[in-house]
Amino acid sequence: MAMKLELDQSRLFSTDPALREVAQRLYEKVAELPILSPHGHVDLGILVRNEPFSNPAELFIYHDHYVTRLLHANGFGLENLGRGEDKPRDAWRILCSNWHLFAGTASGYWLTHVFATVFGISEIPSSENADALYDLIASELLEPRMLPRKLFKTFKIDFLATTDDPCDDLAAHQYLAADPSFEGRVAPTFRPDAYLDPRHPKFVENVRRLLSVASKTAINFANYIDALEMRRQFFIANGAVSSDHGVVEPFTTILDQNEAARLFDQAISGRISTDDARRFAGFMLTEMARMSCEDGLVMTIHAGVYRNHSSQTFAKFGADTGHDIPVTVDFVNNLRPLLETYGLNPKLKVILFALDETTWSREVAPLAGFYPSLFIGPPWWFLDSPDAMVRFREAVTDATGFYKGSGFIDDTRAFLSIPARHDMARRIDCAYLARLVGEGRLAFEQAAAIAVDLVTTIPAKAFNL
Amino acid sequence: MAMKLELDQSRLFSTDPALREVAQRLYEKVAELPILSPHGHVDLGILVRNEPFSNPAELFIYHDHYVTRLLHANGFGLENLGRGEDKPRDAWRILCSNWHLFAGTASGYWLTHVFATVFGISEIPSSENADALYDLIASELLEPRMLPRKLFKTFKIDFLATTDDPCDDLAAHQYLAADPSFEGRVAPTFRPDAYLDPRHPKFVENVRRLLSVASKTAINFANYIDALEMRRQFFIANGAVSSDHGVVEPFTTILDQNEAARLFDQAISGRISTDDARRFAGFMLTEMARMSCEDGLVMTIHAGVYRNHSSQTFAKFGADTGHDIPVTVDFVNNLRPLLETYGLNPKLKVILFALDETTWSREVAPLAGFYPSLFIGPPWWFLDSPDAMVRFREAVTDATGFYKGSGFIDDTRAFLSIPARHDMARRIDCAYLARLVGEGRLAFEQAAAIAVDLVTTIPAKAFNL
Amino acid sequence: MAMKLELDQSRLFSTDPALREVAQRLYEKVAELPILSPHGHVDLGILVRNEPFSNPAELFIYHDHYVTRLLHANGFGLENLGRGEDKPRDAWRILCSNWHLFAGTASGYWLTHVFATVFGISEIPSSENADALYDLIASELLEPRMLPRKLFKTFKIDFLATTDDPCDDLAAHQYLAADPSFEGRVAPTFRPDAYLDPRHPKFVENVRRLLSVASKTAINFANYIDALEMRRQFFIANGAVSSDHGVVEPFTTILDQNEAARLFDQAISGRISTDDARRFAGFMLTEMARMSCEDGLVMTIHAGVYRNHSSQTFAKFGADTGHDIPVTVDFVNNLRPLLETYGLNPKLKVILFALDETTWSREVAPLAGFYPSLFIGPPWWFLDSPDAMVRFREAVTDATGFYKGSGFIDDTRAFLSIPARHDMARRIDCAYLARLVGEGRLAFEQAAAIAVDLVTTIPAKAFNL
Repeated sequence: MAMKLELDQSRLFSTDPALREVAQRLYEKVAELPILSPHGHVDLGILVRNEPFSNPAELFIYHDHYVTRLLHANGFGLENLGRGEDKPRDAWRILCSNWHLFAGTASGYWLTHVFATVFGISEIPSSENADALYDLIASELLEPRMLPRKLFKTFKIDFLATTDDPCDDLAAHQYLAADPSFEGRVAPTFRPDAYLDPRHPKFVENVRRLLSVASKTAINFANYIDALEMRRQFFIANGAVSSDHGVVEPFTTILDQNEAARLFDQAISGRISTDDARRFAGFMLTEMARMSCEDGLVMTIHAGVYRNHSSQTFAKFGADTGHDIPVTVDFVNNLRPLLETYGLNPKLKVILFALDETTWSREVAPLAGFYPSLFIGPPWWFLDSPDAMVRFREAVTDATGFYKGSGFIDDTRAFLSIPARHDMARRIDCAYLARLVGEGRLAFEQAAAIAVDLVTTIPAKAFNL
Repeated sequence: MAMKLELDQSRLFSTDPALREVAQRLYEKVAELPILSPHGHVDLGILVRNEPFSNPAELFIYHDHYVTRLLHANGFGLENLGRGEDKPRDAWRILCSNWHLFAGTASGYWLTHVFATVFGISEIPSSENADALYDLIASELLEPRMLPRKLFKTFKIDFLATTDDPCDDLAAHQYLAADPSFEGRVAPTFRPDAYLDPRHPKFVENVRRLLSVASKTAINFANYIDALEMRRQFFIANGAVSSDHGVVEPFTTILDQNEAARLFDQAISGRISTDDARRFAGFMLTEMARMSCEDGLVMTIHAGVYRNHSSQTFAKFGADTGHDIPVTVDFVNNLRPLLETYGLNPKLKVILFALDETTWSREVAPLAGFYPSLFIGPPWWFLDSPDAMVRFREAVTDATGFYKGSGFIDDTRAFLSIPARHDMARRIDCAYLARLVGEGRLAFEQAAAIAVDLVTTIPAKAFNL
Repeated sequence: MAMKLELDQSRLFSTDPALREVAQRLYEKVAELPILSPHGHVDLGILVRNEPFSNPAELFIYHDHYVTRLLHANGFGLENLGRGEDKPRDAWRILCSNWHLFAGTASGYWLTHVFATVFGISEIPSSENADALYDLIASELLEPRMLPRKLFKTFKIDFLATTDDPCDDLAAHQYLAADPSFEGRVAPTFRPDAYLDPRHPKFVENVRRLLSVASKTAINFANYIDALEMRRQFFIANGAVSSDHGVVEPFTTILDQNEAARLFDQAISGRISTDDARRFAGFMLTEMARMSCEDGLVMTIHAGVYRNHSSQTFAKFGADTGHDIPVTVDFVNNLRPLLETYGLNPKLKVILFALDETTWSREVAPLAGFYPSLFIGPPWWFLDSPDAMVRFREAVTDATGFYKGSGFIDDTRAFLSIPARHDMARRIDCAYLARLVGEGRLAFEQAAAIAVDLVTTIPAKAFNL
């Protein structure tokens, strides 16, 4: 007999009746508030085309490396999960037959949430019901209420940012902005990593394209800086509020213009040393802060990921296939040159995201507890899960309170999971606040105001919304 | 309408009725016990002069970098918080109007405790009641019961240590010792950092003054060592029980006398390399252990702080203005030379304080679980807060139990917050012990004995009180 | 009056009635299941001889460095704890008189469990009852039910692995295998550390013995590799399922055969540089993975211990005397060469054990969440305690679920503590699962299946049992 899939109305709250009741009352104040999603990776094409999603595997497996990595780790090759000749129904069967692998995981939680709330599924997936669930979802997807724009509205998404290449023409954004039938607010995000670091394999090619897009003919440092500033302006004109920086280490440094120009020339000619490439990249991250002080784009720094750890998998299946692995990060020393120059500038806003959770209490909260320009990014990637979110609150709040956070960020490619993720974050915050109330550390009214601020004024302030 | 400020009698205890009742019974055994404060930064002048505190801003804001840093992080310049031309009432208004910034923080908790217990305030501070609260506190401060010595008695402080420069004449300590009307026990602490590390900008100047205070004419290594030993004796004669060492890394090393003398000469002449300066400082930390084995001063090592991270703020407002930031620390390799030489010496006691909380379970507890000379310092600075204190107990107790800790240390400049801090620590320990009782890991009688030991025999043993 | 020693039937479960009841129901499903102990250090001689244990100190103190280290840390010399001329009763008196030192520790918990369940002791040890307890235990030890083989059966140990030198003749294993009266399954584990790392002080001597045992006359790299492979085969023929690797850093690298042979020759001649010795050791760890791909031995990598921190204690009392101290570990960079070559090989299984608990969420869970060959080792050594076990589940489950763990491993020398340790692990897992059920993250039936899998199919799969 199939196990019943049920969404507990009090899920993620403490089972202690006193705390549960407070958490519930706090949650009621925020459950229905609109979603601000200022950083993520949704493909805007789905909103432009507004066509039915194709099938359950495409929707829940193929593009979600949270899901494929765990199946891969348990012996299922990526070639059977959308990266090969497999059929969607086969991939779906693998997922359902191995549902126990997702027990206790964030992915399992989100999928359960979507199955229950969007598709009305009431059985836990299994090998027995895999085909029936596939057919049910496939047929539901054809309903008008399942069209992407309709869901955008149903989900109450007030703001949705994508992540974009600096040379992107932002056509999808322009299309939606020009389309009176689309009422949502979407915005691009300027993501220049591959244009700032000479160690990137396509750096030279990227810089050439950047200069070309910016109509610059001579390839030199001044034009390069100009082009970057122009593209930022183009993004801002199309609604961007932030630039995003995914770096292994958040290394920053200051170079004088002559040295920067010299290193740029070496990088373009392919003769730059690894150490100088690192210095140039560190200088360019600092330059992004300088530009932010001028044009107002918020910087989000996502640090500490070893990308594409398995080169064999990368060669066969490409990037974002589940083997980006966190490493230790030092914010205190690495960010200092940037902060020495721009850290007290009232126009700068930098949000720090860590996958090395030891930095939360040791570095991120203390730094953001002093520098007006620094904000604490929420738990991210491997850490945007119930217990890690609790650890996050416990690690940063004692020292820095609630008001130097950036609010929750879903960072997702999985459009349907957005409400599940934000709902999880809201529940965890309410449960945490309820504990503070229960332990006499906050009055209920204080907690209620904070719960609301966490999903309204706090992200609005951090991202200049 | 103003929100009510109430101190929950069961605050910081679990809301689970079974645990709460046990915690309460444990707490009753320790709530009224005297306070031992063997490490802190209170200005003894307030006890010498015994005059009314001047005003609420002076008392709660100007000297508390926990408070000013968080206001600064939220956009209020230090020049408006006692470091400029501002008026105390204006700074107070900033604090009250931004009370939500302190929600959930340790600072907010302590202030609330003091407001309620010392001043009888029953409203949560706000922009509306800021002036009224200011006037209320200002008028209360004029009451005889609010004089520093009276509070010292009311707070039941049995022992209070200050932190002092090795050249300090300890006049305040001598004055109080000679004053029959002052019954408390206060003691200086020998803090020689700026005299041991050639990388300190005033090292040469300091050493010259040290030798002069010790009546040594020739500036050489032998006299330097003599002078340090003499000053330690002077501190001991004035009641000192410990020396305090604030270091970025707890690096130690052994040098032979000739090399040490050579490096000393280089340091005095300003020609020492950075690496040799580090070695000299590491040797001098080891020398402090040698002296401790002879004169019995307990060493407290406070490691892992990047001081004055914002040089612009440092230049404008000086040290201790909120931008000392923790960094990673390695105790295992760094302390080994010291421990190889003195670690098994029965006269040595070294208390390790970490801001890198990852070291608690990985390094500090295992080290203190073997070396008789090592003790585990309590959560400190950014970590002396409810949730971090719980993490501390969870990180060290499993491996090393309760009896290799040093007891709680408030480390505060804020005299009025001393009872609040010790009360918080006692509550957290009782809540932790209650959980062990509830989970069948301790009998109540065992827990009760431990709760009492934690505030009596344990600090007395660690600090030779 | 003596304090009563009682084993709470619900110990380690939450006191919240809702969670406690669920935990209890889950626990009932696993409490009586047999024990799989695929990694540990029990001396098989006790099963071969099957003689009564000699006395309480021999049984509970002398060979348990968890116990002696904590007594040493509190001032009792190892010479009084079985490493000198002391009498067993004196050591026992020290333990009982200092029972408070073990309050809250894992050691105290295990001892309490054994005292209550095996010896029926009902008083907490103290100086008053030390002699009576000694006599009670000593007399119980003479009962037939206390003979090692009888206990092996009583404890329901289905599989017990020892840890053995590659040159060991495995006589005890062969004896037991040939003895029809012994029904248990025991297996050796191949532990070649001292044969793979030229930095080991006895490397040359060890290699010579290895080649001799393998009947190789010429000392060269090819014979060395052959000999290792032969010894692995010998272990496998005697039941081994895994090889064990205790390394400070899990450094791996690839060398070509010529360079490996060259470094081997240098190592044998004692002229190898420290850096090359590290490279050779890193290559040999990778070679172990290659051999595992061929012969199927599971690799367990126990990383991050600074062995014999106090050289004075080591010189006087030998290894395993309580001063092995954890250090930080990097798995992501160090293991990459091994994983690049063998990480996707379906025959490889590598279990990663960390004492640096920061690696659980940052490195170990993400790595095991992608590589099919990697498994997450359970909390170990200083971390196999109630609160650390909870932290472990919280750190790895969100990202990687339950099915990439290896199951619990007791890693103990203390035969009598095996049931206590496994029972603790089962209780903690049930308490954790109960919370997930209580918070609506798992259905009870899912949790029940996982609880059973955690002590049956999961270790069986990870260790090829």
